Amino acid sequence: MPPFERAEYDARLVTTRKRMAAQGLAALIVTDPANIYYLTGYDAWSFYTPQGLYVPADGELLLFAREMDANGAHATSWLPRGQVLGYPESYVQQPDRHPMDWVAGVLAERAGLRADLDGPVGLECDAYYFSARAADALRAALPGIRFTDAGPLVNWVRAVKSPAEIDLMRRAARIADQVMGVAVEAVRPGRRQCDAAAEIAAAQAAGTAEFGGDYPAIVPMLPSGGSSGIPHLTWSDRPFAAGDATVVEIAGVHRRYHAPLARTIMLGTPPKRLVETSLIVQEGMLAALDAARPGATCEAVERAWRDVIARHGLEKPSRIGYSIGVGYPPDWGEHTMSLRPGDATVLAPNMTFHLILGMWMDGWGLELSETVTVTDDGAECLCSVSRELFTKEAN
Amino acid sequence: MPPFERAEYDARLVTTRKRMAAQGLAALIVTDPANIYYLTGYDAWSFYTPQGLYVPADGELLLFAREMDANGAHATSWLPRGQVLGYPESYVQQPDRHPMDWVAGVLAERAGLRADLDGPVGLECDAYYFSARAADALRAALPGIRFTDAGPLVNWVRAVKSPAEIDLMRRAARIADQVMGVAVEAVRPGRRQCDAAAEIAAAQAAGTAEFGGDYPAIVPMLPSGGSSGIPHLTWSDRPFAAGDATVVEIAGVHRRYHAPLARTIMLGTPPKRLVETSLIVQEGMLAALDAARPGATCEAVERAWRDVIARHGLEKPSRIGYSIGVGYPPDWGEHTMSLRPGDATVLAPNMTFHLILGMWMDGWGLELSETVTVTDDGAECLCSVSRELFTKEAN
Repeated sequence: MPPFERAEYDARLVTTRKRMAAQGLAALIVTDPANIYYLTGYDAWSFYTPQGLYVPADGELLLFAREMDANGAHATSWLPRGQVLGYPESYVQQPDRHPMDWVAGVLAERAGLRADLDGPVGLECDAYYFSARAADALRAALPGIRFTDAGPLVNWVRAVKSPAEIDLMRRAARIADQVMGVAVEAVRPGRRQCDAAAEIAAAQAAGTAEFGGDYPAIVPMLPSGGSSGIPHLTWSDRPFAAGDATVVEIAGVHRRYHAPLARTIMLGTPPKRLVETSLIVQEGMLAALDAARPGATCEAVERAWRDVIARHGLEKPSRIGYSIGVGYPPDWGEHTMSLRPGDATVLAPNMTFHLILGMWMDGWGLELSETVTVTDDGAECLCSVSRELFTKEAN
Repeated sequence: MPPFERAEYDARLVTTRKRMAAQGLAALIVTDPANIYYLTGYDAWSFYTPQGLYVPADGELLLFAREMDANGAHATSWLPRGQVLGYPESYVQQPDRHPMDWVAGVLAERAGLRADLDGPVGLECDAYYFSARAADALRAALPGIRFTDAGPLVNWVRAVKSPAEIDLMRRAARIADQVMGVAVEAVRPGRRQCDAAAEIAAAQAAGTAEFGGDYPAIVPMLPSGGSSGIPHLTWSDRPFAAGDATVVEIAGVHRRYHAPLARTIMLGTPPKRLVETSLIVQEGMLAALDAARPGATCEAVERAWRDVIARHGLEKPSRIGYSIGVGYPPDWGEHTMSLRPGDATVLAPNMTFHLILGMWMDGWGLELSETVTVTDDGAECLCSVSRELFTKEAN
């Protein structure tokens, strides 16, 4: 049932433990759902109650989740049944006790988590579903243990994809191509934003006839008109209007692997500034893609882009991309590399990025993005949608 | 642009501050996106980077978010522009600094957050998007301040809905009715799960001709066949098979207000155990609805249900419902009241619940749920879908 061969999971665990050793960790408690999925295959919408994967430097992995979710782990992960532990329902959303109280007890007894450990226990302190209260509960229940913020340790293991992962991302990209085609068709004057969102969401879930789609970590964004310069607004039931530009940012998703894609659609004759900005951004995209190759740094890719737009008198204060792959709401980014000044990470083959050029201006905006994989000697875009500013009849 | 009159937001703030006073708080930092939306109207998919609302016991509210998201707050909230503060892009997803470092500085300078405060500052320590690292960063940057876990303080304010909120939930319920109709039609033998999910997701987004749908806090669940007894599994691209039961759990959503609904669909002649369980669960639903009225406790509602199923030799270890309303991924529950033993909260008019009877058995399952509002003298189901076990031809 998990999407990868057992050998691939074994290799991921070996790499994770190497990083743990480098950070001097005796164990790691993995709470990011994407990291749990990456290491075990466990895939369910269960992350709204606390869950985690205990990874000792050596010894057995232990997955803990709400009792009712243990069967989901049996059904989707490679973990032996005995390594999945469900906490009782009485711990769920209570003011006076927390699931991590129970987890602490299990880790002390079953996993021998005691004060004489050979190093601190790593926590993913900035993971979305590892709350401040969860961390405090663990620390309070295990006062003899030294906890430390391991940072995005497993996220970094995920940075370089295996061939099997790239295959899944290629499938996701086929879906993204289809979804963007649907979006370009669906955005038209007089149509409500929610009706276009409906067609987009349907295309995301259905996928292709050959392989189905999965839910995206971020819902479709389609800010329009005066809002097109505002990132992260979701749809309303207002109709698209003639003369408006609409920014569409979506992803194709297959088995939790994402291929995001953004384009801009103009209803009617585009204003000059939009046409010009689109051409500059396309030129900048080519420059960034040209700079992306093994050995180049993340910041060098951004610099290539910035040089182009600066020549045209434009600037963009925010990053132009980030590492992607497995994602769960609320984000498909991996929270490791960013294409921005100061990120000196060196690109390697099979790293994958969402290269997103979002120009959020005063009252208008434009986006253009690609899902990119670093190859042996350059970079490849996984999607195949034209980069033009899509211009449609206004009636 | 916010969905409610300014007077309603003012009233919510007054009630919030009363609760703050009762807990002795000098201020509260609200980070749950549903709570921020509830108090200000701010609505964007921006919660994947840290954000929050500073609520002093008196004085001006301050919303902080990533710089690029400030315009979204201007566009959707009632907050004056000067009360929206954007932190620089250089704080986003960095190993050596955190947005809360910046926030701490602003709160110290602009909001006078100093050690001579008249009480501790409340944090929402178990909110999804307030990470352990965020809490630690705040504490470290403001060592003179006493922080305390305020718990789900604003969530409790949300427990009793206003007439305007009930109106939005009625709209959400109309959408839920439609969505369930689509689901019952879409689940058929040979059809892939992802194709049914596509139709469901489209119906959720489109809403009705009169008012559009919004994205649900939880994606459609439709575990089928041998997986129908496993909660929280999402769809795959396997086809539905004759002889299988499928559990469908969805919500209608309008302007972030949710009306969840669950039903079970059988393809072919249902096994005796499913028919019998369905009848028992329907009887239990009637008993729970009959018990739900102002003055009754949450646990009394559960007891009425449990008495019915115990008479038929069944038991259910998990809660049968929880408070609902505004929701953002990953949950549409409000994390306050639960219909379960030990919850002695007394029901009051205009409290709203998802009353969900999920029977997860060994290899099979059944769900039946209603979105319920407590009335002056009883309870009303907002949706209007038959509670029967839907049985369809197997071919």
